[in-house]
Amino acid sequence: MGKIEIANSLKTIGRAIPRTDYRAKITGAIPYPSDVAVEGMLESAIVHSPFAHAEIESIDISAAIEVPGVICVLTRDDLKELDPYFGPVFRDQPILAIDRVRYEGEPVVAIVAVDRKTAHYAASLVEVEYHPHPEIDNLEAALEPNAPLVQSYAQRGSHYSKVLADADPRHTSNVAFKWDYDRGNVVAGMATADLIIENEYRVPIIHHFPLEPIHTVAKMDSEGITVWTGTQTPMAVRQDLAVIFGCPQSKIQVVSFPMGGSFGAKAFSKVEPLAVALARKAGKPVRVALSMSETARTIRRAGARVKIKSGVNRDGTLVARKVEIDYQIGAYADCAPRVAQKGGYVSAGPYRIPNLEIRSRAIYSNTPPSGAYRGFGVPQATWAYEQHTDELAKALGMDAIEFRLKNMLERGESYAEGDTPIDTDYAPVLRELANELEWDQPLKPWRGRGVAVSFKPSQAPTESTAIVRLHADGSVSVLMGTAEMGQGSNSAMAQIAAEEINIPLERVVVTKPDTAMVPFDSTTTASRSTVAMGRAVQNAARDIKSKLLKRAAILLKESVDNLIIENGEIVFGQQRLTIPEILYQTKEISGIEIISIGQFILAPTRSPIGGSTPFWEPCWVATEVEVDPNTGRVKVCRLLTAVDAGKAINLQQVEGQDIGSSMQGIGAALYEQMIFESGVLSNPSLVQYRVPLFMDVPDDFRSKVIENEDGPGPFGAKGVGEGGLMAVPAAIGNAVAQAIGTHINQLPLTPERVWRAITKKEGSET
Amino acid sequence: MGKIEIANSLKTIGRAIPRTDYRAKITGAIPYPSDVAVEGMLESAIVHSPFAHAEIESIDISAAIEVPGVICVLTRDDLKELDPYFGPVFRDQPILAIDRVRYEGEPVVAIVAVDRKTAHYAASLVEVEYHPHPEIDNLEAALEPNAPLVQSYAQRGSHYSKVLADADPRHTSNVAFKWDYDRGNVVAGMATADLIIENEYRVPIIHHFPLEPIHTVAKMDSEGITVWTGTQTPMAVRQDLAVIFGCPQSKIQVVSFPMGGSFGAKAFSKVEPLAVALARKAGKPVRVALSMSETARTIRRAGARVKIKSGVNRDGTLVARKVEIDYQIGAYADCAPRVAQKGGYVSAGPYRIPNLEIRSRAIYSNTPPSGAYRGFGVPQATWAYEQHTDELAKALGMDAIEFRLKNMLERGESYAEGDTPIDTDYAPVLRELANELEWDQPLKPWRGRGVAVSFKPSQAPTESTAIVRLHADGSVSVLMGTAEMGQGSNSAMAQIAAEEINIPLERVVVTKPDTAMVPFDSTTTASRSTVAMGRAVQNAARDIKSKLLKRAAILLKESVDNLIIENGEIVFGQQRLTIPEILYQTKEISGIEIISIGQFILAPTRSPIGGSTPFWEPCWVATEVEVDPNTGRVKVCRLLTAVDAGKAINLQQVEGQDIGSSMQGIGAALYEQMIFESGVLSNPSLVQYRVPLFMDVPDDFRSKVIENEDGPGPFGAKGVGEGGLMAVPAAIGNAVAQAIGTHINQLPLTPERVWRAITKKEGSET
Repeated sequence: MGKIEIANSLKTIGRAIPRTDYRAKITGAIPYPSDVAVEGMLESAIVHSPFAHAEIESIDISAAIEVPGVICVLTRDDLKELDPYFGPVFRDQPILAIDRVRYEGEPVVAIVAVDRKTAHYAASLVEVEYHPHPEIDNLEAALEPNAPLVQSYAQRGSHYSKVLADADPRHTSNVAFKWDYDRGNVVAGMATADLIIENEYRVPIIHHFPLEPIHTVAKMDSEGITVWTGTQTPMAVRQDLAVIFGCPQSKIQVVSFPMGGSFGAKAFSKVEPLAVALARKAGKPVRVALSMSETARTIRRAGARVKIKSGVNRDGTLVARKVEIDYQIGAYADCAPRVAQKGGYVSAGPYRIPNLEIRSRAIYSNTPPSGAYRGFGVPQATWAYEQHTDELAKALGMDAIEFRLKNMLERGESYAEGDTPIDTDYAPVLRELANELEWDQPLKPWRGRGVAVSFKPSQAPTESTAIVRLHADGSVSVLMGTAEMGQGSNSAMAQIAAEEINIPLERVVVTKPDTAMVPFDSTTTASRSTVAMGRAVQNAARDIKSKLLKRAAILLKESVDNLIIENGEIVFGQQRLTIPEILYQTKEISGIEIISIGQFILAPTRSPIGGSTPFWEPCWVATEVEVDPNTGRVKVCRLLTAVDAGKAINLQQVEGQDIGSSMQGIGAALYEQMIFESGVLSNPSLVQYRVPLFMDVPDDFRSKVIENEDGPGPFGAKGVGEGGLMAVPAAIGNAVAQAIGTHINQLPLTPERVWRAITKKEGSET
Repeated sequence: MGKIEIANSLKTIGRAIPRTDYRAKITGAIPYPSDVAVEGMLESAIVHSPFAHAEIESIDISAAIEVPGVICVLTRDDLKELDPYFGPVFRDQPILAIDRVRYEGEPVVAIVAVDRKTAHYAASLVEVEYHPHPEIDNLEAALEPNAPLVQSYAQRGSHYSKVLADADPRHTSNVAFKWDYDRGNVVAGMATADLIIENEYRVPIIHHFPLEPIHTVAKMDSEGITVWTGTQTPMAVRQDLAVIFGCPQSKIQVVSFPMGGSFGAKAFSKVEPLAVALARKAGKPVRVALSMSETARTIRRAGARVKIKSGVNRDGTLVARKVEIDYQIGAYADCAPRVAQKGGYVSAGPYRIPNLEIRSRAIYSNTPPSGAYRGFGVPQATWAYEQHTDELAKALGMDAIEFRLKNMLERGESYAEGDTPIDTDYAPVLRELANELEWDQPLKPWRGRGVAVSFKPSQAPTESTAIVRLHADGSVSVLMGTAEMGQGSNSAMAQIAAEEINIPLERVVVTKPDTAMVPFDSTTTASRSTVAMGRAVQNAARDIKSKLLKRAAILLKESVDNLIIENGEIVFGQQRLTIPEILYQTKEISGIEIISIGQFILAPTRSPIGGSTPFWEPCWVATEVEVDPNTGRVKVCRLLTAVDAGKAINLQQVEGQDIGSSMQGIGAALYEQMIFESGVLSNPSLVQYRVPLFMDVPDDFRSKVIENEDGPGPFGAKGVGEGGLMAVPAAIGNAVAQAIGTHINQLPLTPERVWRAITKKEGSET
């Protein structure tokens, strides 16, 4: 019996084991997209617009084309043969600027040459005449009644999002997308409230700064298109390329290599269409290797302005809330309308609010496109509503935690009708973190404590399909479209397959996404993969196991029920059969390899934003900070977070994800902002753009992993990895407010901004 | 109604349409194995044994390793870390010679260098001291009672062939393998015969001479092994590499590129293990690019000596036959034991013979390994029994065709108990070809006519599995392990998928075999793929169609029975739905991509050689030749062949295969032989080794395709492509015998040999 118990207990799931790719990462055996080098490959350089908004009057490439070593020069003229627009919501982004440039850094001309130096030299010889227009580089300017339109003409819809595809793609203002929600009666609710507070909160534009910039190699010939890249969405890139180049999807191979970080920056088409267009013209493979500062001008996170008005009763009950959230998106929509929709959707916070009105908008501006970024619009909203929550508590004279606990949604309650009920326990976890932080203990001077909570829906409807193959020697291949970007999906999927079949983990290999080979997977986004792809892999692996046991049962002339698999061997009493023995001896009946397709489709009932989330990704943050009153510098002394993993497939990775996400939150809280001057990005590199460093790691930095095995994923798992980021800035903001006695409603909490708040010093910030 | 009929009639199957890859072949867009170039790849050179049989006394690589640009030198010492033997029947072939060399040209040392010139220069500096032994380079020497043993020690068995794995792998003679069959009572049968004729026939060793020599690139790192090669058996190569390098199969990726011809030469491991061993030592990708003459020393067809003794009654009835067939295989077994088994099995010919005894052997010799070659042992047997058939007819005073018709197996009769009954109509087709040839018309002087028939079992048990994916845009991917070597399998499989789903052919893409990605397929051999993989693809495609119709039925609220698919659109009355419309509108229920696995396992009842053939590959040849009496030169004036395709998937390709195979038969009949002098191959290049040229194409050269839709493959298809080769030499031999009045029992029918037969001139041939 003891033996059977061991056999049935989890071998790899839930353990803090090293990720399966650690050795390859350490030894450099893993090729990243920037390592891809295809024989005969040419290099490229891009001529970018120096203006944020201008007509292109003329382009003169005559000097560039004469440079020895230049193979070809791609201009807007070459795009006439193509359908050159892409974008996951509206197809509004051209491969190269056509008549107008709409942001500083927009690609205008691209050079293919034998090496990068030649390409860059030739690029410097391209003469483009521009007729500059006034640029729209902030929300206020974009929303002026007679503001020039960043985008004016009708856009073609996309298949990606039915809800969004139904939106009117014609623009008569700079509002790219608008999403409204209301329930109850906010006016009536406010009328009954004892106290109404209204405030405005600001979040700047920030950049993902994955340590690996965007690199893509492409080739195109009569047989089709091959793209070697790093993307979270190989299938979506394939779809864009199919439309742009008029090529059947079956002839397009998008291979996504493990990325050196993405955080959303490498979701949906980035330079892949340009790389293919260059390869098409050059007739050879071409690499597009962006620099860090080019990457920063390719994609970034939306800035936001959030107005919240709340009505509360004296006892602390929230009765009504109105949220107006405007996301400052860039010159092209990318997936920002969806960000506005999803971020807007949960912008009221995980609270019980009977009367609620939300208006969320995505506003075009002459800045680089904004797209997916860890948290997908929720961090911006959380900064606002969790500052606001503390302000409400303060105004009521209530403890910030007690006020939250009074209004917080409980497990089983609905945030919005039609969506999955809350599937986590906010209150007890918040209490636990507060206790851990010694919330009630006295503080030293210039210290403050703060908490914040947040929540995010995952994605629906989506689908994942995986193929699992059990080879003749008992090793296993998992073929799937989930992209590895450091989050450890390859390791998690290998663990799930190994666990389900009960074979040693080191026998399992997970392939990289290759659209020509692996079955369809929606995207690697929204913390969805552990759940959706995990279930697909689990389903396939279970089928493999069942087929294997059936074959063993035939050989052993035994009932399947009497057989177990123990570490890759089939055990019946004293008898043991290896997997090769079973497969070889039964191959004439069932084939030597056992192969199975596992699918997981998530098409639930409809919430206000479409399909209902498969799970909620909650987060809790409790922090203690110290402010230097002389400089305004904020030091995060303690940072306690909690993450609801349902069941951690790999405990080490879950903690790593939460710690990493929280560190990124420290960056957003204290340092990060992209600064535009007349639409020109002035801090595009890591020298000028401050990200959190090792010295910023809090002395007490812990992540609590909650495992109730109550998620829809394999073994009860939920998706994780975005949490910390969402609530860390607000928690730090609340702590800083406590330390200095006043709220600063605008991120980041730079020393200057904090110092000015302390000193109430007037004057513009520098 | 007319419309429906069109919709249901075959669109692509059976038509003489261009193969789908013709444009890519013509434009050079298809990368062949010799085009594979991996970034950072190193080159190599091999030091070959100059002796056919010798002990290796010492190897001195000190000068070679000092050559600038040399990366590493691989010797037998490096093999100690590996299990360095491979082979599909016995694992008897080492990556490099260890203690002994067993054939001239055997790899002894290999050099990796930055380029080929450096590698070859370094190879020239390697000093190997040999102690030569007497070589065994012909059957007689090998079978001497006290002949030295080519292979002496126990060999490890292989999983590939159960029947052969049971054979004793220890060698106490040079008989590598022996296979016996008997039925009835030959002694008693002979005793009742009116006439007994016994004769001996000879077939030389010949080479495949694919126009592309053997090229492989390999890399190996901590993540596993990748091999880019051209092989008919990627899964078998993977298995060898797994054993040699102790690597799970899931970590081995063998990618087989479309080959520039193979004809069996690129079946089973050739230089792949060496390439991986070099890449392992070099720590970088390495190419092994054999020259033509190195390829000729890698693999070749077995020579044969066939003794046939037959008893016939005066009325022409065959009553007894005894066949003794010895195949001269090389120094390592490769798949030659299976060649001996299968060629021996059918060495009595497609005739009704109640008393039959067959003894077939594979005999080791100090010559390059012999392996698979189009016809797999049957051409050697056919040369013998069809010469013999004419001799019997002549002795009986019967017409050669009438004698054949009297004894020929009819549809439904069994060649041997347990095997599939004959599934073709020998007699009427033979009559038709004879009529076509005007068999009864008088001949001009020095002209002769001949016929020959043959038959070959395909392979069993085997299995094929395919994945078919219907993408969102209505295009289709077929993932399969069948290797394209010019035979047109990619085209045929695309046609089968397009036909079954009823979508335009140009929307279908067939992937190349990639063991990391495509499901298991036994091999691309034995003309099995159209049947086995064809059925697997068909099964998957049917499932795709059925799922697509179900989804359309849901959308249209109609019964599936009322819907048809017409050229990629779903039609119901006046309504039409495109595939993308269906997939997008039903994706939340069933996923956006329809994916299906099709499997076809062939595990039939047991014939004397194992599983019973899924179909018989028959062939008929009728020819008229003209002999120049002054030079002995034979010109094939007319060559009429027939091929039973069951149903031609692509008529143009079926004819092309039969014509090509017949041309190769002309080579074997008139020109081809590998000449060994003291075990040293003296004609390893196309300058010295005569293959058929365009000037050898007969003036009247036709292939009749029989289509009774009676095969086990899709649409009633049978496998084709080996036929003509099997019987062409015998038909030409019989025609030459008629022209000159005497049979020459030894191939090839060189001018000298024919001239000597004419003049009965004594003296040794040169």
